[in-house]
Amino acid sequence: MWTQRTLTLDPRPRGFHLITDAVRDALDLSNVAVGVLHVFIQHTSAALTINENASPAVRGDLERHFNEMVPEGQPYYEHTLEGPDDMPAHIKASMLSHTLTVPINNGTLQLGTWQGLYLCEHRTQGGPRTLVLTVHGQAPEAA
Amino acid sequence: MWTQRTLTLDPRPRGFHLITDAVRDALDLSNVAVGVLHVFIQHTSAALTINENASPAVRGDLERHFNEMVPEGQPYYEHTLEGPDDMPAHIKASMLSHTLTVPINNGTLQLGTWQGLYLCEHRTQGGPRTLVLTVHGQAPEAA
Amino acid sequence: MWTQRTLTLDPRPRGFHLITDAVRDALDLSNVAVGVLHVFIQHTSAALTINENASPAVRGDLERHFNEMVPEGQPYYEHTLEGPDDMPAHIKASMLSHTLTVPINNGTLQLGTWQGLYLCEHRTQGGPRTLVLTVHGQAPEAA
Repeated sequence: MWTQRTLTLDPRPRGFHLITDAVRDALDLSNVAVGVLHVFIQHTSAALTINENASPAVRGDLERHFNEMVPEGQPYYEHTLEGPDDMPAHIKASMLSHTLTVPINNGTLQLGTWQGLYLCEHRTQGGPRTLVLTVHGQAPEAA
Repeated sequence: MWTQRTLTLDPRPRGFHLITDAVRDALDLSNVAVGVLHVFIQHTSAALTINENASPAVRGDLERHFNEMVPEGQPYYEHTLEGPDDMPAHIKASMLSHTLTVPINNGTLQLGTWQGLYLCEHRTQGGPRTLVLTVHGQAPEAA
Repeated sequence: MWTQRTLTLDPRPRGFHLITDAVRDALDLSNVAVGVLHVFIQHTSAALTINENASPAVRGDLERHFNEMVPEGQPYYEHTLEGPDDMPAHIKASMLSHTLTVPINNGTLQLGTWQGLYLCEHRTQGGPRTLVLTVHGQAPEAA
């Protein structure tokens, strides 16, 4: 059993953002007994990750620390035409991920208690971001 | 063909640990001709990766270098209530991965000769860690 | 519907390389209505990622910045027998990824306009690199 759809997220400010509810609301998992959700971002200056779903300070600290590890204006950057935040955005995207995959059981994403899905927006003026959501799994056995 | 189970790993000290055998022992792949193993960790301060399976020095160097890239006590950390190792653990988890996926052929994980599955324990006092193992694949064709 | 094959890439110089065409040419997706491509690298000193497919400067900047974040010759490296580029290669491999997964729709990889698949060669003298390509999906429904 396969289903696939796109989900376009409204523009968000630079930083790390919880998108668990937006993704969950776009899916119907009621008929998946066992399976995997695959989330793919079709961009190279924004990324996906899974991290703590409660404290906003975690999301702020992630943004601040990635800015330390991947600063703007490094003298060796040659890809600078699209602004000082562009090349760091590409590097951060590869340090994080273009995909998330989450197991499904009995119609429910098997996230841990503290896990949330994140959009990592690395551009200072990012636009809408398109995700491709693919669910594959097994339907409950007929009674 | 889908199977899914959880595997709870005993607490391990902070650092990088080989878990290939623990994962393999938890699976029965004998009936999978072609498929993929999906391993998911239900935590945000520990992570999964694949790296060299022979030299313990590789695992020590990974721990030492991640501690350099993500030091404790950065002045901009705001998420500090759970101790100095907590926020670095969250950052490291996103730099590594919450999932591993490994192709299966003829009942065998298609790891390279030198590849092993790692648990990356980023807390100084981490507890047990729960993995969700999902196998999906195709059974050998009936003779 | 499952298919799986290996693809061995010729040796490439240290750096980030586009391999989208090499991977696409190795696949026949014509009979996949909905599915996912799984690419797995069987090595621990080279990696895979997705990034910008146009500007060669992006690939150069990625190489230069990863060399900053993971320098050779750190005094705490103990795994040094295979040369100064070896341990940094292992660390970079875990910061990037051993897998790529890309959704498939109507026989086409659902990459964004600017996305390309990369081989990240971290050894100064890397050899051929073997990928395992697994396609799973659903055939178009019979008319």
